[in-house]
Amino acid sequence: MQYRQDAFNGLIIDAASLPTDREAFAPALAELLTSARREGRNLIWLTLPLALGDLVGIATAAGFVFHNCLEQELTLVWRGTPTAFAPFVPTHSLGVGGLVLNDRGELLAIRERGSQGYKLPGGHVELGEDLAPAVVREVWEETGIRSAFRSVVGLVTTHPYRFGKSNLYVVCRLDPLSAEIAIQDPEEIEDARWLALPEYLADPGNSAFNRELVRSLAQAEGLQTSALNSERYPKAEVFLAQPSKD
Amino acid sequence: MQYRQDAFNGLIIDAASLPTDREAFAPALAELLTSARREGRNLIWLTLPLALGDLVGIATAAGFVFHNCLEQELTLVWRGTPTAFAPFVPTHSLGVGGLVLNDRGELLAIRERGSQGYKLPGGHVELGEDLAPAVVREVWEETGIRSAFRSVVGLVTTHPYRFGKSNLYVVCRLDPLSAEIAIQDPEEIEDARWLALPEYLADPGNSAFNRELVRSLAQAEGLQTSALNSERYPKAEVFLAQPSKD
Repeated sequence: MQYRQDAFNGLIIDAASLPTDREAFAPALAELLTSARREGRNLIWLTLPLALGDLVGIATAAGFVFHNCLEQELTLVWRGTPTAFAPFVPTHSLGVGGLVLNDRGELLAIRERGSQGYKLPGGHVELGEDLAPAVVREVWEETGIRSAFRSVVGLVTTHPYRFGKSNLYVVCRLDPLSAEIAIQDPEEIEDARWLALPEYLADPGNSAFNRELVRSLAQAEGLQTSALNSERYPKAEVFLAQPSKD
Repeated sequence: MQYRQDAFNGLIIDAASLPTDREAFAPALAELLTSARREGRNLIWLTLPLALGDLVGIATAAGFVFHNCLEQELTLVWRGTPTAFAPFVPTHSLGVGGLVLNDRGELLAIRERGSQGYKLPGGHVELGEDLAPAVVREVWEETGIRSAFRSVVGLVTTHPYRFGKSNLYVVCRLDPLSAEIAIQDPEEIEDARWLALPEYLADPGNSAFNRELVRSLAQAEGLQTSALNSERYPKAEVFLAQPSKD
């Protein structure tokens, strides 16, 4: 197997040089580990494509642990010492929410199929997608409203979220560029509408967290630690924009 | 194998019920796939502990793809239809930077071993760690300065970063609670010092990106799309706090 060095006294195995069967891979990996130990290497990186999934067990049996993955490839790492630093672990999924207020002071809000109450339109940021286009896309898919990105007004980290990892939710202020609602994704979204802000805030059918979020952000400018950081929401760390001083 | 249903017309295989050898796992998985196809299931989730790494190849050969992992476990997913939605993919690592200015207008800055120029202290947010304690911890490890979190003043997403995933860098304004520098992590940090802000901004030895970041944030309040979103930094999407109107 071929390899190159990384910046952390580690080795990166060249995926193109991998044996494709278990019988050839096991001795090749054992040989590499012997020389890595002799050279005092901190790390060995091994990225296996999906088609070579059958080699994963050889690597884990040899002391590799999982490090990160994409759908089509899995990266494992071996540490020469227990405390060797293996940089970069993807820990968070990102979500975006759009705070869209029109010039009548109405809030653009959606209700998901099977859910109670209205919330901000939004969703998952795709791998490689920028935040601003992601929130504009989600608002359009869920409401049919075209909008322009204005600013980030809120940041919420939640953990544990799923699979022991975390979520970061970025709330963005958007200016509406159209008014007529036309849900593009009716399987996910049951209703979308413009709601008068006092009506939204007063409706106990909307979650207390969402109402507090909207109330805090309606006149928003900078990000500060929020009163939502409390025993009521122990999994959340919340930074919210503060009312403008204008 | 035992399983339970998820909220997306999927099945979650109970890890405790997994056969521990390849010969038993392959037919059990084939049987589950047959019934999942018959029932029109969208997804099957399979989480394998590191000790059962040898089963990964059986799953990938049966059509599972990698979904996410921790060091000690790997989650794979099978889709009943090509477009079945498998929610939550961890896409980002998180970094934090501390903008610490003392009452003499000096910036707390560090120089990493092997690097040129000074930058904000900071580092990786650990899995499960909140942002505010993470930045206070990193500032302390790199400079020995105790500080209090004040606000988030900048947000930078970078992709691709490593392994095809993304990074999100959160810049936080901190108030210093001590003055004397004492680097706790001398292996990583070569120097830390208080630098007069004009001196830091004028020094071409510091990167243009870092100087623009500090210049933009020194009087910071809210987050807006930044002039750093430009052809000079095509991988970055940058939101920065704006000067206070006080």
